[in-house]
Amino acid sequence: MININSLLAQYGLLLDEDRLEEWVDLFTEDSQYKVVTRENKKMNLPVAVIWCDNKNMIRDRIHSYRHVNEHNLHWDRHVIGPPRINPISSSEWQVQASYSLFQTNLEGRSILFSVGMYDFKIIEKNNILKINYLEVVSDTASFETLLATPI
Amino acid sequence: MININSLLAQYGLLLDEDRLEEWVDLFTEDSQYKVVTRENKKMNLPVAVIWCDNKNMIRDRIHSYRHVNEHNLHWDRHVIGPPRINPISSSEWQVQASYSLFQTNLEGRSILFSVGMYDFKIIEKNNILKINYLEVVSDTASFETLLATPI
Amino acid sequence: MININSLLAQYGLLLDEDRLEEWVDLFTEDSQYKVVTRENKKMNLPVAVIWCDNKNMIRDRIHSYRHVNEHNLHWDRHVIGPPRINPISSSEWQVQASYSLFQTNLEGRSILFSVGMYDFKIIEKNNILKINYLEVVSDTASFETLLATPI
Repeated sequence: MININSLLAQYGLLLDEDRLEEWVDLFTEDSQYKVVTRENKKMNLPVAVIWCDNKNMIRDRIHSYRHVNEHNLHWDRHVIGPPRINPISSSEWQVQASYSLFQTNLEGRSILFSVGMYDFKIIEKNNILKINYLEVVSDTASFETLLATPI
Repeated sequence: MININSLLAQYGLLLDEDRLEEWVDLFTEDSQYKVVTRENKKMNLPVAVIWCDNKNMIRDRIHSYRHVNEHNLHWDRHVIGPPRINPISSSEWQVQASYSLFQTNLEGRSILFSVGMYDFKIIEKNNILKINYLEVVSDTASFETLLATPI
Repeated sequence: MININSLLAQYGLLLDEDRLEEWVDLFTEDSQYKVVTRENKKMNLPVAVIWCDNKNMIRDRIHSYRHVNEHNLHWDRHVIGPPRINPISSSEWQVQASYSLFQTNLEGRSILFSVGMYDFKIIEKNNILKINYLEVVSDTASFETLLATPI
């Protein structure tokens, strides 16, 4: 549990510090990363805001963010709540936690950007915890700006 | 402490997932559940936004929410901070934690709904932690919409 | 780790409860407390919003807040995320955590006031954890109101 809290802390802080390549390394090679809206999930619509089927797709996304796109410049700030932890096996856990995500623009104005829930499958290998699956379910659907960085 | 964190996680997530009946089961039969505003508490006014004297009253409230009232439809999202834990006895603790509560409407727009503090008395019985008392002290007093779901 | 979570809880709740003198006692005598904006830090500008070089300066600040100044009256509410903990020695840790800080005015309206990160050095002495250094890096730079209470 203590290590799971550390992983959640790393997840949010690495994104907030713009250390996106290190954030990618929290995932296993066969990891899935999805961002869906709560409304679409509830209606069983197969629409995802982001859908990466393996770690290479996550890497590509970060790479393209770094090298290709021009984005609205901002800083992210994740504040994550306490986790609900359900063991799947002796080395696998389902971990769910609410998050609030704020964005601050270049003028130093902060807004609420998205709230929602993380639904992780976390696995342990050689004493290290990694994300094997992550579905981000965003309550917020009205993204004010282009969704460029991961949630 | 670890179990107390899990209880806090369950408290928020069950509400956010609209699993209100399971949320009720976090309380003991003789549990009190109150929502007060910080201003009223400070001025010692005996006014509560919600006041349930036992678990049946909490059940009734959820039941009436489910079956009678028409409410503004929204999703809740609780993000709860780290707990301050004070042992009362070997099986009782006062647990206090700050919360932020966001609401998202059917258009997918999220707003800050309430911030404040939880003041729990938590007891252990047969290795299970339950809420024996909860006073929610909401800093926010200007509820924009009817207070329908628990905080 | 468990104690570090308790310290974070105390840090936020003591400020929110206006128990500022007890909040000061979380610091060591030689502690530094700084508030900087992320923008200024990134540009290496030596500008701080608050800069206290030792505990007496922190005390003075609280004292002057209590006895001299007239401030906009409000309540603070800190919601702090999970900590990233890096041991420096057997009794010293770097602890970093994201925060969201809300303010509520006398009419009971709550706003997002600041988001950012705490960068602590925490030390243990006689089984008690104290803050030996704290840099608050605020993403938010557009403080709507005079920065009167600590972040």
